[in-house]
Amino acid sequence: MKIIEGGICAAKGFTANGIHCGIRKNKTKRDLSLIFSDTLCAAAAVYTTNLVKGAPIAVTKRNIADGYAQAVICNSGNANTCNYNGVEIATQMCDLVADELLINASNVVVASTGVIGELLDITPIRDGIPALVSGLGKNSAEAAEGIMTTDTVRKEIAVSFEIDGKECHIGGIAKGSGMIHPNMATMLVFITTDCAVSPEMLQKALSSDIQDTFNMTSVDGDTSTNDMVTILANGQAGNDVIDTDDDNFKEFMKALNTVTVYLCRSIAADGEGATKLVECIVEGAASKEQAKIAAKSVICSSLVKAAMFGSDANWGRVLCALGYGVKDLDPSTVSVSFRSAKGEIPVCVNGAGVPFSEEIAKEILLEKEIEILVSLGSGDFKATAWGCDLTYDYVRINGDYRT
Amino acid sequence: MKIIEGGICAAKGFTANGIHCGIRKNKTKRDLSLIFSDTLCAAAAVYTTNLVKGAPIAVTKRNIADGYAQAVICNSGNANTCNYNGVEIATQMCDLVADELLINASNVVVASTGVIGELLDITPIRDGIPALVSGLGKNSAEAAEGIMTTDTVRKEIAVSFEIDGKECHIGGIAKGSGMIHPNMATMLVFITTDCAVSPEMLQKALSSDIQDTFNMTSVDGDTSTNDMVTILANGQAGNDVIDTDDDNFKEFMKALNTVTVYLCRSIAADGEGATKLVECIVEGAASKEQAKIAAKSVICSSLVKAAMFGSDANWGRVLCALGYGVKDLDPSTVSVSFRSAKGEIPVCVNGAGVPFSEEIAKEILLEKEIEILVSLGSGDFKATAWGCDLTYDYVRINGDYRT
Repeated sequence: MKIIEGGICAAKGFTANGIHCGIRKNKTKRDLSLIFSDTLCAAAAVYTTNLVKGAPIAVTKRNIADGYAQAVICNSGNANTCNYNGVEIATQMCDLVADELLINASNVVVASTGVIGELLDITPIRDGIPALVSGLGKNSAEAAEGIMTTDTVRKEIAVSFEIDGKECHIGGIAKGSGMIHPNMATMLVFITTDCAVSPEMLQKALSSDIQDTFNMTSVDGDTSTNDMVTILANGQAGNDVIDTDDDNFKEFMKALNTVTVYLCRSIAADGEGATKLVECIVEGAASKEQAKIAAKSVICSSLVKAAMFGSDANWGRVLCALGYGVKDLDPSTVSVSFRSAKGEIPVCVNGAGVPFSEEIAKEILLEKEIEILVSLGSGDFKATAWGCDLTYDYVRINGDYRT
Repeated sequence: MKIIEGGICAAKGFTANGIHCGIRKNKTKRDLSLIFSDTLCAAAAVYTTNLVKGAPIAVTKRNIADGYAQAVICNSGNANTCNYNGVEIATQMCDLVADELLINASNVVVASTGVIGELLDITPIRDGIPALVSGLGKNSAEAAEGIMTTDTVRKEIAVSFEIDGKECHIGGIAKGSGMIHPNMATMLVFITTDCAVSPEMLQKALSSDIQDTFNMTSVDGDTSTNDMVTILANGQAGNDVIDTDDDNFKEFMKALNTVTVYLCRSIAADGEGATKLVECIVEGAASKEQAKIAAKSVICSSLVKAAMFGSDANWGRVLCALGYGVKDLDPSTVSVSFRSAKGEIPVCVNGAGVPFSEEIAKEILLEKEIEILVSLGSGDFKATAWGCDLTYDYVRINGDYRT
């Protein structure tokens, strides 16, 4: 397996585009994206568990209920959520783009991201679709930009791998930034592959993968109303269709996981206002569940996040977050270290502080990627969670998001 | 019942003091407080549910296991938590102050607040105790100051009320600010009363009251390792001892609730970096539990908190927080208004936005005390939660707390 260029257009048969159609006032920001496969794809998706759900989620669910899709349309600048006409608008988006692509509207995945509770005007979308479609090409970057909200960098990746001697590709784009605390499903992520996978196994792969990737990522503890991860597999790599849990499926899962972990890290590192990617790696847990809860509890603590912003080795806050987050924790067997490219420093062993150089700790924590290593000392299970620091800019961005 | 001066010294027989003994470097900050009753008191307490617990909690639990206590000693500047010698130091604090007060060490409640994981030196405490005790008087304010950490104002209140024709008093002090997200128990709160209440009914009153007061307060979602609320009742008001769930008990509960709600509001308003008190009042819930979860979910959302800082009527974030927090939510019956001294403005009715004046909304939200009114439209239950906005100063304070 190797990392390659091309994002969501790395897989054969996929093209994409992203334009500014006018939903966002700033004309330099793209606000409408399209992903298209020239043949029908097996499709799978996972959605937010928030009970307040964006209208596009209802329409997408309906459209891929049969396990197949061929295109994804997504706008930024407006979430089309908590509006009386949300489903009607989302359906229109599918109809309009399907007409232009000459495909069936029931094979379109639709998504929206942005402000909640403001009506989404179909006019700029209708007017933009001809240019959006005519500009389809190997434009993964443009599509990745069209789904950004407060993201500062676009997020895309692709890998190539082999199944049955056939070269396969899988690529993805994501938007993250704020309202990021996926639960069962996640932010907006679109993944494409030319690997042949049955709809059932594709859903199985995705549902399984997100448990350790997107569901282990948090920027601010707020689970969005519009979270969605979808994957389209058009089978153009020519491998025998993966339709059972065999070695090929495992190989596919490995490639998928490389893509999703990369996107999780990108989303965390580009969290609203973030200056640092913070990774909490828990080992020695009594169960997988305990490991995951421990890692997420640390990553979600506002106090830990603020300490990371200040490059402050305040490990007491890590212990505190473990203590309120983890049932059955035995504090007396917990150890904590901080690690980065500058080295690793143990700060707590068996529940009590150990002497350490504040100077070296500071040097380690001043890096852009920080690992908080936690050993629970009560078993063999591990988990990793991704988050970011809490900064002045998070407050600035969210203090007046709508203006 | 009326609100009176005197704080924790309003009740007969109680004196208090707070001094700077040298745990904190800043000599203008008091760091050691004492509350004393000249007769033995019925005592009750509730503690943090964090599994990483401060050593003072273990010692206090042991000391009031018999239902009685006579003094409270508390230091700020160091939490005496995650230290190998924590219990030994906390025990010494009890021994030293008991010797000076000529009482039994097993009747002392001990508490500590401050940094986790740094050894607490007994020397300044030992050296300070004689002056602490000799200065005992009607010094509630000094005691309230001695338990402050990043609090910007001291928090104290007292009320008088009548039981059996006898005038009773109840007063309390609190420290709050950061790491405030009590769960079953709460931050540091000390309450005194001269009302005669049996230890059992005192514990019942406290355990019941906190469910709707301290447990409904959150500053930053982090449950501290050292949270504790204690109440001492010395019976000097001369009423017949309250030892059953009768009208007198209800009267006592009402007075207690007045004290605790005042302290909760004070703690939320003075949350780290806070510029505003934010109160979420939920009604129309299907159950008490649903009402409480809804109110806390809104109060705890970083995005709602940041919007309140920016005086931004971004009600979509309120819906979002309800949607991920509340099981069985029906978004189509949810309505939201914002209210303050400047008026009230409905922004969402039955799950969808309604047109409103952004100008008027801004004026309402620029106030220092904001109410977010949520109607779930699915029953008759209510709950209130207290929190604050998320500001630049929260990040500044916590970015480098230890230096």
